[in-house]
Amino acid sequence: MKIMILGAGVMGSATSWPLSDNGHEIRLVGTHLDHAIIQNCKESGYHPRLKRQLPKNVTPFYIEEIEKAIDGVDFIVSGVNSMGVRWTGQKLAPYLKPGDKVIAITKGMEADPEGNLLILPEVLRSELPDSIKDKVSLAAIGGPCIAGELAGQRQSCVYFGCRELEAALFMAGAFRTDYYHVWTTNDVQGLETAVAMKNAYATGVGIATGVLSSSGGVDGAGAYMHNLAAALFAQGCIEMQRILELTGGNTAFAFGLPGAGDLFVTCQGGRSSLLGKLLGEGKTYQQAVKLMEGETLEAALMVMQMAKALPKLEARSILITQQMPFMQMLIDIIVNGKPVKFLLDQFFTDCCI
Amino acid sequence: MKIMILGAGVMGSATSWPLSDNGHEIRLVGTHLDHAIIQNCKESGYHPRLKRQLPKNVTPFYIEEIEKAIDGVDFIVSGVNSMGVRWTGQKLAPYLKPGDKVIAITKGMEADPEGNLLILPEVLRSELPDSIKDKVSLAAIGGPCIAGELAGQRQSCVYFGCRELEAALFMAGAFRTDYYHVWTTNDVQGLETAVAMKNAYATGVGIATGVLSSSGGVDGAGAYMHNLAAALFAQGCIEMQRILELTGGNTAFAFGLPGAGDLFVTCQGGRSSLLGKLLGEGKTYQQAVKLMEGETLEAALMVMQMAKALPKLEARSILITQQMPFMQMLIDIIVNGKPVKFLLDQFFTDCCI
Repeated sequence: MKIMILGAGVMGSATSWPLSDNGHEIRLVGTHLDHAIIQNCKESGYHPRLKRQLPKNVTPFYIEEIEKAIDGVDFIVSGVNSMGVRWTGQKLAPYLKPGDKVIAITKGMEADPEGNLLILPEVLRSELPDSIKDKVSLAAIGGPCIAGELAGQRQSCVYFGCRELEAALFMAGAFRTDYYHVWTTNDVQGLETAVAMKNAYATGVGIATGVLSSSGGVDGAGAYMHNLAAALFAQGCIEMQRILELTGGNTAFAFGLPGAGDLFVTCQGGRSSLLGKLLGEGKTYQQAVKLMEGETLEAALMVMQMAKALPKLEARSILITQQMPFMQMLIDIIVNGKPVKFLLDQFFTDCCI
Repeated sequence: MKIMILGAGVMGSATSWPLSDNGHEIRLVGTHLDHAIIQNCKESGYHPRLKRQLPKNVTPFYIEEIEKAIDGVDFIVSGVNSMGVRWTGQKLAPYLKPGDKVIAITKGMEADPEGNLLILPEVLRSELPDSIKDKVSLAAIGGPCIAGELAGQRQSCVYFGCRELEAALFMAGAFRTDYYHVWTTNDVQGLETAVAMKNAYATGVGIATGVLSSSGGVDGAGAYMHNLAAALFAQGCIEMQRILELTGGNTAFAFGLPGAGDLFVTCQGGRSSLLGKLLGEGKTYQQAVKLMEGETLEAALMVMQMAKALPKLEARSILITQQMPFMQMLIDIIVNGKPVKFLLDQFFTDCCI
């Protein structure tokens, strides 16, 4: 097969390993932000952010060369981050034909004016012309998969979600190797809800690390704050289950790969955790953003969308904000600028356990 | 109140902190294995395994002094490990009266000859004389709580479970502080099932660490095996949910404090994780046991009980072993002496997601 990857960041580029191992022809197209990466890839085949030589069968393209890169492809991988989803829709619109398939690695949701949470494949769809909008399959990848490990051909397990299950099955077939294990679901809404929410909750769990360091660190007898982190982790899973329930997603995702699994891997480090650590140390969100300059903070973007959505969902009697005390805490810190304060006794309310 | 703690190991002893902070009188009784600890506590008030001075209001007792220690207590905390549950029942039997309450910190289950999984409070109950058996409240503590952190007065969230909910509420009232948060449930069977299973699955998740180190460690580009660990974590949550479902426990525990939360904290280190790491490095269970001499491996005991229970439950058409591929993998390694082999494609079967 011929596959175009749009976006040459770490995750988009990492998907070229299983595709290459399956003998496909891969065209890696950088966005206007990826110019230096593509230049490097063209010159030496070395991906500077993944710190690896690209696998065989990968041809790098600048965004200006997209017309050539997209010609005759079997499907497209969108490796653009959540800020670039609308741009991606606009960029692909001229080329898409009925029956085309796009699978996105991006995680996030957008609150619409009524408080409905739109998953990113639907945001992308909204940028397509009416003539094509409902005739393309827009899929998403969700599950615990650190890009550097996928590029290192480490064992990874993910879901491909698409309203049109056969499109997910088609692309899963192109991707599956003995190290990249793919399950499929037509519940792309549930899948994307879980994996978008988990970024926010990973920031929440990371707060425990920051609170530990700002309160003197590990004590003389060797005590960390793992108990607190674990309680936050559990409440994150519970709130993911609640959101899945109220948005009609598969609630089992909360304790499967897209929920507990993806939250677990996100808590092992990375941007979302680090943001939490900085907040736990007492920095404001603005101070943390400055310290992490250049990073896309998808966790914070998710919290901001939830800050918009929750009051509207509550006004429509779809949920009670008190059922989401951990998300409310994150909103208070990130959006309302309040200091970190755990109201643990509001967690694990009996109504839901 | 007056409270006796039987067992002066780290977890039993750690429960004296919230009790002391609430002004109760605590009698800490060592078992015959705790002689050196109690001697130390009597001489200097220092608990050598917790590496801390005991809080005020704690009086240490040798097991030979139990008659004095148990006199007039409001309830008993059993801090004995899973190997000592029957001993505890026998030891307490002469002193228990109708209405008495015992809360245990021990996690584990025993398979009976039909494959039913008995939780440890019921194993303890089976050692009591018929005249008292059904007239005492036997409760259990479950949830993510590392002993050293509780003794360090770190934030911790747990459940107290008891068939007689009022007994759980009574003891929760004695324990609750601004750092020790207690929820209550009458589903002690579900609570104990989740927290017992999580030890086994923490060993399973730990295997990823061992496989990483035996296969050359972190690679040149910095890739760990967190994706694999996260997939194992998710499958552990799914299998906890399945066992809860088939034993009539609250399935929400799988992604709450007793399931995902307690599994998360257990994966942060400790005996169950270390056992997994050694197995992942290629050591046999017997070699791992030797290397960890002196430690009670509750994770392995749980796997052995599941090895007894699963075929019998399958014969009774209560479950299909293929629905528990992660537990079957642990049984193959720990009980059947087979090498580590991940059959990840058997995980996340669609029947259940």
